Amino acid sequence: MEVLRTHKLAGEHSGPSIEEAADKFESGKVFLVGAGPGDAELITVKGLRYLRQADVVLYDRLISPLLLDETHPGTELIFVGKEPGCHSIPQEQINKLLISYARQGHTVVRLKGGDPFVFGRGGEEAQALVDAGIPFEVVPGVSSVTAVPAYAGIPITHRDFTSSVTIVTGHEGYSASPTVNWEALAALGGTLVILMGVKALPHFTQRLIAAGMDPTLPAAIIQEGTTPQQRVITGTLGEIAQRAQEAGLTSPALTVIGTVVSTREALEWYEKAKAT
Amino acid sequence: MEVLRTHKLAGEHSGPSIEEAADKFESGKVFLVGAGPGDAELITVKGLRYLRQADVVLYDRLISPLLLDETHPGTELIFVGKEPGCHSIPQEQINKLLISYARQGHTVVRLKGGDPFVFGRGGEEAQALVDAGIPFEVVPGVSSVTAVPAYAGIPITHRDFTSSVTIVTGHEGYSASPTVNWEALAALGGTLVILMGVKALPHFTQRLIAAGMDPTLPAAIIQEGTTPQQRVITGTLGEIAQRAQEAGLTSPALTVIGTVVSTREALEWYEKAKAT
Repeated sequence: MEVLRTHKLAGEHSGPSIEEAADKFESGKVFLVGAGPGDAELITVKGLRYLRQADVVLYDRLISPLLLDETHPGTELIFVGKEPGCHSIPQEQINKLLISYARQGHTVVRLKGGDPFVFGRGGEEAQALVDAGIPFEVVPGVSSVTAVPAYAGIPITHRDFTSSVTIVTGHEGYSASPTVNWEALAALGGTLVILMGVKALPHFTQRLIAAGMDPTLPAAIIQEGTTPQQRVITGTLGEIAQRAQEAGLTSPALTVIGTVVSTREALEWYEKAKAT
Repeated sequence: MEVLRTHKLAGEHSGPSIEEAADKFESGKVFLVGAGPGDAELITVKGLRYLRQADVVLYDRLISPLLLDETHPGTELIFVGKEPGCHSIPQEQINKLLISYARQGHTVVRLKGGDPFVFGRGGEEAQALVDAGIPFEVVPGVSSVTAVPAYAGIPITHRDFTSSVTIVTGHEGYSASPTVNWEALAALGGTLVILMGVKALPHFTQRLIAAGMDPTLPAAIIQEGTTPQQRVITGTLGEIAQRAQEAGLTSPALTVIGTVVSTREALEWYEKAKAT
């Protein structure tokens, strides 16, 4: 009964049905699938369907093993992520693998953490597929940007506090800093979500304060959000980087700055549920 | 077999298993569930599981009927959305309904478009539940902010173009404008995603240009993204509002401004798939 209802949903949605999709698979197709933020059950129904049909899965670090278990027997699972301290497979090599497997007629799932088009280089992979004439589909995922704060009891928007959210990343260490307009970021107000390692954070928060951002703004840093290992440190913008280092927080971590962080004390639900 | 695999995923993830969750349901619990951006299959596996277990579902406008079909027979389905031109049910009334049904011991799903904590008043609903002593859980969803551009072939981030994304909303018509720091928004660079009706858009784009934003920046407005009715109009920041009005675009619509929009010409995949 449950299977029938699943198929009903799958068959009537706006994309290709399983049967239609199977036709297209004959010529090889790549699916850029968002795995979600960590909690395996936050993958989309569509993403899980494609994952179960895949002949080949190229996956990143931080992908839940529970998701890889969902593939059918015989699926080729290829790890293309970056281990901490090791060299990663160059993006160009990943692109070549996607194209090569698709040209062999395989159904290829590129399984990426969070959402493939949010700081995930999905745009670069899609461009490589277009250049090679390989058909592809994007399956958006739940982004860590929204879900990790939510699991820490922080809505990144709240009518009472803010009408904007800005998400900023550092590419590699400090190198991205010159491209950030610190004064504009400090002046904008609203919520600021920073995707950046714990080591790079002090530099970033100091630049924000130097540019005029209020050092007493509430801030939170969340390690391994949406997983049983989730850890959250709160404080002010002025002290959050030091607090995170003292607490020994490590990547993956995400930082939220803004008055919305003050809701955490009341709204935190995930850690409470774990504790009971 | 497929059912077993589904249960395996559900049972081993970090949240409560179905059986554990059922225990908690005895005292009444509310699940704030993101339905995703429009394509019904972009709901999460966890969101669909809770939806299928719900005794009562309070849902918004723009929720796919396919999702409501997934509820079990006898589930009470309550529409609490705002019809265009009509008064909506006040937020306070929705909060009261959530509390009342939970106190009767029901499993209540509050099914919200996109993500409940991204411009969705989920924070206010969670606060009301905390105040009433009702246990709740947040199930993040795929946000329109990321998925709607993705279905139009636009990654909102791209390493070559931008290291930041800002999302701005207008609350009611033009009234939110004074709270926006236009100069900071114009100076920040990066991608700008605007959640706003087509009518309010000319005012917004004029203010951005007056604040110094380059009127030749690429822009796109997307109506009913991720659904078979998806329509996309592109142009420059200077002309996009007028083009959208000339084309008769209506809500729900989302606007993207920034160099990432230039990728659409190559990366557009969803409309191509519909056309074949």
